[in-house]
Amino acid sequence: MPDHEIFDLGNVVLQSGLTLRHATLAYKTYGTLAPARDNVIVMPTFYGAQHPDTEAMMRPGRALDPARYFIVVPNMFGNGLSSSPSNTPAPFDRAGFPNVTVYDNVVCQHRLVTEHLGIDRLRLVVGYSMGAQQAFQWGALYSDMVRAIAPLCGSARTSPHNYLFLEGVKAALLADAEFADGWYQSPPVRGLRAFARVYAGWVFSQDFFREGEYRKLGLASVEDTARFMEGYFRQRDANDLLAMLWTWQHADIGANPKHQGDFAAALGAIRARAIVMPCVTDLYFRVRDNQLEVAQMPNAELRPIPSIWGHVAAFGGNPADDEFIDAALRELLAE
Amino acid sequence: MPDHEIFDLGNVVLQSGLTLRHATLAYKTYGTLAPARDNVIVMPTFYGAQHPDTEAMMRPGRALDPARYFIVVPNMFGNGLSSSPSNTPAPFDRAGFPNVTVYDNVVCQHRLVTEHLGIDRLRLVVGYSMGAQQAFQWGALYSDMVRAIAPLCGSARTSPHNYLFLEGVKAALLADAEFADGWYQSPPVRGLRAFARVYAGWVFSQDFFREGEYRKLGLASVEDTARFMEGYFRQRDANDLLAMLWTWQHADIGANPKHQGDFAAALGAIRARAIVMPCVTDLYFRVRDNQLEVAQMPNAELRPIPSIWGHVAAFGGNPADDEFIDAALRELLAE
Repeated sequence: MPDHEIFDLGNVVLQSGLTLRHATLAYKTYGTLAPARDNVIVMPTFYGAQHPDTEAMMRPGRALDPARYFIVVPNMFGNGLSSSPSNTPAPFDRAGFPNVTVYDNVVCQHRLVTEHLGIDRLRLVVGYSMGAQQAFQWGALYSDMVRAIAPLCGSARTSPHNYLFLEGVKAALLADAEFADGWYQSPPVRGLRAFARVYAGWVFSQDFFREGEYRKLGLASVEDTARFMEGYFRQRDANDLLAMLWTWQHADIGANPKHQGDFAAALGAIRARAIVMPCVTDLYFRVRDNQLEVAQMPNAELRPIPSIWGHVAAFGGNPADDEFIDAALRELLAE
Repeated sequence: MPDHEIFDLGNVVLQSGLTLRHATLAYKTYGTLAPARDNVIVMPTFYGAQHPDTEAMMRPGRALDPARYFIVVPNMFGNGLSSSPSNTPAPFDRAGFPNVTVYDNVVCQHRLVTEHLGIDRLRLVVGYSMGAQQAFQWGALYSDMVRAIAPLCGSARTSPHNYLFLEGVKAALLADAEFADGWYQSPPVRGLRAFARVYAGWVFSQDFFREGEYRKLGLASVEDTARFMEGYFRQRDANDLLAMLWTWQHADIGANPKHQGDFAAALGAIRARAIVMPCVTDLYFRVRDNQLEVAQMPNAELRPIPSIWGHVAAFGGNPADDEFIDAALRELLAE
């Protein structure tokens, strides 16, 4: 029995011009909606993740406390729970799945929150990595209803280098002929393993390995860490991973009908208070990119996470980083 | 007609305990040996490179001036010119090629210089990337004959993260079943392309792409840059690339019969004056690793290259970086 609910979106016309029929958004809520409907937090999912992967952010004692807040976690398209290559009928199944943008995701999440849950104000939109990209997009599109955003280890637009790093992980998967242009009958395991191994080099920092920090994750060696990443990604379908990867590569909160490609205008539209938290050692979502973005946002602060955990600093697992992040979230959530 | 010479090493017993019969070292010399035999520079090659790839370091006006110095460029084993998987008879051809260490390389280069060229003093050993690793090894093994070393963008021991990054590029190649465990009849092009694409994300810095610095290399876009790397690596044989990759992953100047695994002792044995030049934005040969090494060397200075060109800062191509490096080389070469 699934631990989540499904919002039937009906026919969704995507930015690509393709109509995804009977599109669905899988979501889970945590906590109780206050009678005044004023305790709502939205937390979109990150790359490869499903809603249970976000629950580390809600552990007892953390700022995102389901005893106080009503936390809505919408699953990103392509993650295997919301509409994805692996669960969509022809002609949009598997390699036929259409390209979905961050904008497409957030417009549908907005429908979930307003039409389906009857909520018109959000205390906070918080997200990690691609979840951060969705948080920026929420702020730019729905500035009237979003009081604060907290993008963690993510940028409002995918940088050229970030795009290229993703080209590498994609190429590793596509090098496996078993992938068969996405029409495989059984998983392209060799390609998925290569994908994960390339990814493992990027997601932690150089210092993380030099200092043996992986031990704090219960991992014994560098190779153990690579296998851990393999385990994470082999849970997912190859086409699903590539669908989310496309979304990531093309993330740009200005590239949509509202902002017509004007990235600066989209950043300027984020009137919500924002604390933007890159990690100083993140190898692909860089402090510098966020710094340039924050400079164009009217009510934003850049607050880098001083950690050697690289991109995973905000994944939930390093107590010092959790405390740093939670302090900022408590500020944003304060009355 | 080849533009280089061959030194026949005879039967070489490698660190692995395997005997590489009729091993050869391909090398090229530039400039003229002074009558006093006191103007000699050795410059080993870097990953994937052959001696012509080092010639950017000798362009007119640069510190490594063939009009003044006698510059010996020995090709690394595995690079397709010295003994390599692609040019060695059975049983050591192709996937049967034995593992070769940095130590194996440098011991054979020492034989070239002493036995074959009759040289017993070196003004400088300079190298870029894996060439830097060989320069460190020269300093540790032959401190009596090496007056100075200049390791550029390279460490005396491959760091855990560097090892993992190489696992990723290797996995991308091996994901191609056409590789056939190294017994391919035609090149595994899909895997080689993936290899190069993964590599492209690592060899430049994030800032390099944000600032569009690739244009200074005559490249028009991020994709153009990925294709440039593809062109570079597709010149090489897949097994050759993997042979050099093994050498790189296991680089450690203490891991040999002389130093018996004592890395600190090997660093301490480098009595030559050293200026160690990592690039501040290099994503795999990190300043911090060199800093820890320099602290254990008796006559060394850490002088990071202040550049956003990442690992390629010392490749030769960015005038500001070339000048920075040449100033240090001139210091080391001064009487």
